Amino acid sequence: MTSQQQNAVLVSAPGKVILFGEHAVVYGKPAIAASLGLRTYSWIRRTNDSNVRLNLPDIHTLPITWESRVLAELAAAHYRASDWATPAVLTPESETALSALIEGVTTPAVRQATLAFLHLYLSICKGRSDLDTCVRSALPVGAGLGSSASYSVTIAAGLLALGGYGEDPALVNGWAFMAEKVIHGNPSGVDNSLATYGGAKVYSHGKLEALGGFGSLRFMLTDTRVPKNTKRQVELVRERKLRFPLAMDLLIDSVQGIVEECKSLFLDVEQKRVSEDEMLTAMEALIDMNHGIMSACGVSHPSLEMVRLVTASHGLRSKLTGAGGGGCALTLIRPDTTRETLDSIKERLHLEGFMCFETEVGGVGVTVRSDPDACAWDSFADLPAAEWASLVSTLDKP
Amino acid sequence: MTSQQQNAVLVSAPGKVILFGEHAVVYGKPAIAASLGLRTYSWIRRTNDSNVRLNLPDIHTLPITWESRVLAELAAAHYRASDWATPAVLTPESETALSALIEGVTTPAVRQATLAFLHLYLSICKGRSDLDTCVRSALPVGAGLGSSASYSVTIAAGLLALGGYGEDPALVNGWAFMAEKVIHGNPSGVDNSLATYGGAKVYSHGKLEALGGFGSLRFMLTDTRVPKNTKRQVELVRERKLRFPLAMDLLIDSVQGIVEECKSLFLDVEQKRVSEDEMLTAMEALIDMNHGIMSACGVSHPSLEMVRLVTASHGLRSKLTGAGGGGCALTLIRPDTTRETLDSIKERLHLEGFMCFETEVGGVGVTVRSDPDACAWDSFADLPAAEWASLVSTLDKP
Repeated sequence: MTSQQQNAVLVSAPGKVILFGEHAVVYGKPAIAASLGLRTYSWIRRTNDSNVRLNLPDIHTLPITWESRVLAELAAAHYRASDWATPAVLTPESETALSALIEGVTTPAVRQATLAFLHLYLSICKGRSDLDTCVRSALPVGAGLGSSASYSVTIAAGLLALGGYGEDPALVNGWAFMAEKVIHGNPSGVDNSLATYGGAKVYSHGKLEALGGFGSLRFMLTDTRVPKNTKRQVELVRERKLRFPLAMDLLIDSVQGIVEECKSLFLDVEQKRVSEDEMLTAMEALIDMNHGIMSACGVSHPSLEMVRLVTASHGLRSKLTGAGGGGCALTLIRPDTTRETLDSIKERLHLEGFMCFETEVGGVGVTVRSDPDACAWDSFADLPAAEWASLVSTLDKP
Repeated sequence: MTSQQQNAVLVSAPGKVILFGEHAVVYGKPAIAASLGLRTYSWIRRTNDSNVRLNLPDIHTLPITWESRVLAELAAAHYRASDWATPAVLTPESETALSALIEGVTTPAVRQATLAFLHLYLSICKGRSDLDTCVRSALPVGAGLGSSASYSVTIAAGLLALGGYGEDPALVNGWAFMAEKVIHGNPSGVDNSLATYGGAKVYSHGKLEALGGFGSLRFMLTDTRVPKNTKRQVELVRERKLRFPLAMDLLIDSVQGIVEECKSLFLDVEQKRVSEDEMLTAMEALIDMNHGIMSACGVSHPSLEMVRLVTASHGLRSKLTGAGGGGCALTLIRPDTTRETLDSIKERLHLEGFMCFETEVGGVGVTVRSDPDACAWDSFADLPAAEWASLVSTLDKP
């Protein structure tokens, strides 16, 4: 089962978006989620300096460093029974022990990411390797785009590959889920599955099934940078549902209809009953419909409507993705959409203070590369965010 | 049954808007329509110049004049059996005879209005009165706001009052419906009923019932001046419904839910279970929901979304009214909405080329006044549209 140990790996994993079914999923309806081409990149290399180092330059100024000896002792005390082949949860006792190692880290997001890293490192490597780890992400953090899952997947896949334990996606996904539990408490498992496997999946009653026939599609993701509050948006829908059940219950049901139509569409694609152009036209209608229903549920926002207006003026269709009330919107890019059109849309949306990313939805999951020459360590860690983003956009995708 | 003959009357009747349920009504669902405070005004006076004259200054340059003797002969030949108390349809034979009287009139809207006038004049007055009639309307024509019904109601009520036949609304409504048949072929009867009775009504399966508890509400009506094509919009919904039945059938059903919620809301208002503020807040949510569903059905338009964005930026909620794809939007005005807010919204929407009207929805139906001093004939007929609009805004409403 084990394969060649590696000296350095560059691992990347995608984010995720909800394509259809947000909010209705709260009421037991199915949703369709897909991988998002904005990826998290973890570069991990062995060193011989008796240290383990975690560098998260985008969210924490300095690398966090532990002596390997200290980690090995901790592993011996708390991770003796753990096995790289059996993903296991961080126990409260281990959490207490790990917390002592990160007393200086106060930002919650950095603390959680660090705890998750340490849990995977101790479980898989048992404190037996000196490592430098640097993680950077093209994903906006906290925007509901699965940035923590894509981080967790790259760490899990990277540590397993470095240890010579192979690249079994089920194992990567299992460990990433354990890291997600450290970060989120009670994750659904959707985000790490999409970061691991890529593609598009139907999520229903706690289960994921692949959406057959769905290849990757080009989308523009717009981050309105209007802070979203998922909990508040879920409450808003619940309140409206309690106040106006006669209309809202059917609206929530109609979201399920959108998901069923999407499944049926890609079954037709798989069986070559519709052309690509027909598929895109149908997707545009479903995007329009799903957004309209979300607007009817009260979770749109003027910023999201502005994205819709601007893109519609160029013939493109957009919808909110995620909880709404701000946050992100997705715009389907057609194959015949010109560079000028996209630039013109982006320019207009930048004027509103929004950030736009051209990317794909439904692309590949985690990838592990062991040719570290592809990207020099120094530039990977030290580049300013904008230059780094430009650099990673040149990395080949396997 | 007959009352005093009048020498001159000023009759006015409201337009109508659909508050909730447009498009779903095509599939047998109920809709809520209400009178619109933009009114049509008909001034009718007896003369002794042996002529009957119809002046429609806003849509036809010159008054159309017939010799009373010619009309009396035509009445004797074709309207012998007709009775002012029994509304009757224009027969094909009579239509042929009347057409000979308006050969010079080529604009379809003017021809239809003139035919309808002649049918009512010959039915009710039998060619026995010399008359001057002048009609002006504050309603945009062809915008789905019931301008023809409000015209028909003022002519019917005016001729009945002048003839001394009283102001029985059922009779006025019956004759107006006959005029609507001349103009539209196969009208639903909703528009003339609202122009006659005012208020708000639930229309379901060809029947109208009053919406209890609904007083009049202040609204801003915005005419986007984007030409609407009702038939095309109805087709768009039908196509989307055929293509995506799983989602669309439930969406259409959810519109019925909105109408039921609205009925239930005003039952609560009637029984004093909700305050005015709660009613307005609920109306705002229903407006939002209904518009979102229409958007999901594909019948919104960037111009309508712009109205929503601009009004939302001032805390007001808007929805399309009628077929969508352009046409008009309604914005609920709250009692605490300031003059500055309204002016600021109007200024912004004027920049888009839209026309805004502050008005009421659900106000009184037809009114007949016999104090012709209220408004001098000459200014009524001859003022430019803008000045006239300003003049009628000063007319008292009984």
